[in-house]
Amino acid sequence: MSEPIAVVGGVGTTLGIALCKTLSANGYKVVGLARSEALHKEVTCMRCDLNNENEVFKTIREIEENIGHISTYIHNLGEFAQAPFLESDQGQFEQLWRTNCFSAYHAAKAVIADMIDTGGGNLVFIGATASIKGNADFSAFASSKFALRGLAQSLAREFGPKGVHVAHVIIDGVMWGHHAETWGMKVEQCLKPDAVANSILHLVRQDRSAWTHELDIRPDIENF
Amino acid sequence: MSEPIAVVGGVGTTLGIALCKTLSANGYKVVGLARSEALHKEVTCMRCDLNNENEVFKTIREIEENIGHISTYIHNLGEFAQAPFLESDQGQFEQLWRTNCFSAYHAAKAVIADMIDTGGGNLVFIGATASIKGNADFSAFASSKFALRGLAQSLAREFGPKGVHVAHVIIDGVMWGHHAETWGMKVEQCLKPDAVANSILHLVRQDRSAWTHELDIRPDIENF
Amino acid sequence: MSEPIAVVGGVGTTLGIALCKTLSANGYKVVGLARSEALHKEVTCMRCDLNNENEVFKTIREIEENIGHISTYIHNLGEFAQAPFLESDQGQFEQLWRTNCFSAYHAAKAVIADMIDTGGGNLVFIGATASIKGNADFSAFASSKFALRGLAQSLAREFGPKGVHVAHVIIDGVMWGHHAETWGMKVEQCLKPDAVANSILHLVRQDRSAWTHELDIRPDIENF
Amino acid sequence: MSEPIAVVGGVGTTLGIALCKTLSANGYKVVGLARSEALHKEVTCMRCDLNNENEVFKTIREIEENIGHISTYIHNLGEFAQAPFLESDQGQFEQLWRTNCFSAYHAAKAVIADMIDTGGGNLVFIGATASIKGNADFSAFASSKFALRGLAQSLAREFGPKGVHVAHVIIDGVMWGHHAETWGMKVEQCLKPDAVANSILHLVRQDRSAWTHELDIRPDIENF
Repeated sequence: MSEPIAVVGGVGTTLGIALCKTLSANGYKVVGLARSEALHKEVTCMRCDLNNENEVFKTIREIEENIGHISTYIHNLGEFAQAPFLESDQGQFEQLWRTNCFSAYHAAKAVIADMIDTGGGNLVFIGATASIKGNADFSAFASSKFALRGLAQSLAREFGPKGVHVAHVIIDGVMWGHHAETWGMKVEQCLKPDAVANSILHLVRQDRSAWTHELDIRPDIENF
Repeated sequence: MSEPIAVVGGVGTTLGIALCKTLSANGYKVVGLARSEALHKEVTCMRCDLNNENEVFKTIREIEENIGHISTYIHNLGEFAQAPFLESDQGQFEQLWRTNCFSAYHAAKAVIADMIDTGGGNLVFIGATASIKGNADFSAFASSKFALRGLAQSLAREFGPKGVHVAHVIIDGVMWGHHAETWGMKVEQCLKPDAVANSILHLVRQDRSAWTHELDIRPDIENF
Repeated sequence: MSEPIAVVGGVGTTLGIALCKTLSANGYKVVGLARSEALHKEVTCMRCDLNNENEVFKTIREIEENIGHISTYIHNLGEFAQAPFLESDQGQFEQLWRTNCFSAYHAAKAVIADMIDTGGGNLVFIGATASIKGNADFSAFASSKFALRGLAQSLAREFGPKGVHVAHVIIDGVMWGHHAETWGMKVEQCLKPDAVANSILHLVRQDRSAWTHELDIRPDIENF
Repeated sequence: MSEPIAVVGGVGTTLGIALCKTLSANGYKVVGLARSEALHKEVTCMRCDLNNENEVFKTIREIEENIGHISTYIHNLGEFAQAPFLESDQGQFEQLWRTNCFSAYHAAKAVIADMIDTGGGNLVFIGATASIKGNADFSAFASSKFALRGLAQSLAREFGPKGVHVAHVIIDGVMWGHHAETWGMKVEQCLKPDAVANSILHLVRQDRSAWTHELDIRPDIENF
């Protein structure tokens, strides 16, 4: 049997790279989707603006035709914002919803039908602390992440019986990487991207008799 | 002391009318905001498309200048949809988010600052079963209602300490009225609008030492 | 029609007294159940150890026979504990479960059948922050309060269709009173017992077309 | 480095056996604790009544002294009950709490201190659908499973920063095995014990920078 194909939508963050490497190291043929010109050399990437539904559909069709059926799609696009509500910008509120939720709608639309037709697949969405708790000054971020979670739940219930495993991962903390360092954080306070990728690998390999829809992931010392 | 002023955003449904009447009967000066030309005769209404942020800000400013400070704002706008995901329309997905969540963002922006300046106020959002559970075929509706809930939680945590009581009401069932009758439902299976309005009246009258952020409301026989 | 009869199980705390007074002032004939010899003069009380199931059944039967059908029963018994787990006492773990959960089981057993036979009633359980979040050093308290919540949910679903409104109130903060003063708290940081009692009065008066099962109550400045 | 030691408390069900085998096959030295005389031949078991705290402490001490430090403890004891509340037995209500929650308290007490002293460990509790939803006729079962979940959360927050990973697994469905067959279920409707054990193996191997506290597991076709 040929290698299963995994697509990681959003390879710019530390988690995206870690997902590509982890899946590659475990027998998947991996395609990353990245927005920037500077495509990642370590992993196979295609350029795709995940906020543009036409590009998303076109890119997914290309992969299906030229590489093969996508068995696993992980949507790793995310944009963060923190601001007092009265100083917040309505354009940003909408933009966060587009990036954090609507892009996932398009990606799911693009991949699910073929997964059903080919016997099943995995669809993973990446959430955050704000997916389950709307804290002060996080109105835009929390609202968009709640929206993604509602979408993920509905898709899980609709497509589980059709063989598509939809999972929602709540990343409760800061991912270790360039940004975390800039913010003065130490590695012990952060989630290691490889470790998170490893749990997502586990999710997409679960037997269909024992699927997980939602799990939280955080560092041992995280206050929650 | 003059009557407190309450604004009901969205008077077209049975609940909107019931809220206007219940608040009026309990000492509030009430202004309903309705989209349609046919304004309701039983209650004082202004025409305002709540999906249009400019109209929302303009209307709220008019009320504040001509009638007085708004002490209670209830956002009762909502649009429903049910469809298999793969047959769903992306325009509808966006429209539901606009109507069920983004309009609430604008309304909150329009009313909160003055509430803080004048010693406090009440801001009530209306949720649904789909606010906490994303069922199959409800991807657009659930995602938009989750989004509203995330916004409501964030605003509650940000503005509670500033005197603004933000509440989120989960209507878990069908409101009795024309639509329910059309669907062949009986009154015993439905929520009575007056009864729901009565609980919302209670919410906006709670002492600030004992505020409720979220409560569910359903008929006695509802399966939940 | 004669006055409806309300029983408040656990009158020793500030909330118990407030419930008795609030219900009395609103047309209920109220009987408080108190453990201590020093019965409260302001409210009608009977002595009853709510941790003793025989006393509970006997007392409820006495009330039903001598005073009348109980339309509302509020279970206000609670015991608090905070301790590092490894220093905690297994006897206390069990005792908290008995006081915070098992006593509610007995009280519900004692009152529900007659409520069903006489057309319905209200059963209210009092929860805490720890009912929905198990924090460090609260293993015994959280476990017992979670247990009570599971019981309340199950009873709500079983007896709602039979006319018994089962509600669970999450008190998220410290009730103002002697203890709060001793702990150095100020009244502005606390829940006022009368205000909480007022929301519970609202709950037990809700129309059966619009029942609330769970609501949270906290001071405006409470961090949650 | 020698093999890590795992103890499975409760080997009588299908999951207990699967856990022992899965952990053994993955480099753990495994000891199962079983109540019955008929110890399992396929896995190394010690006799221990997990409802008897003295036996629990004695057995755990024996393992620590004769075999070595326990790095992973999985508490797999559970008792099920379903009954209309008014026909339910108070003795059973208490018994379920003892088996489903109090036994976990004792086991955690017995294993945690040594885990902290030896650099960390894993403690896994097994929940059910009833851990998060109290359905009609499940008052005793739901209350006991809620109680276990409250305990698990509290321990996770207290001991995570001390290196002990506390996880709570929500088994949302019926485990395949003798009982399921007796009930007329088909294997496709059930969770396969090996698949569930595999996810628990993943949990106890997570890097401490990326721990999961709670995850749900269910068959693809399960309604949830």
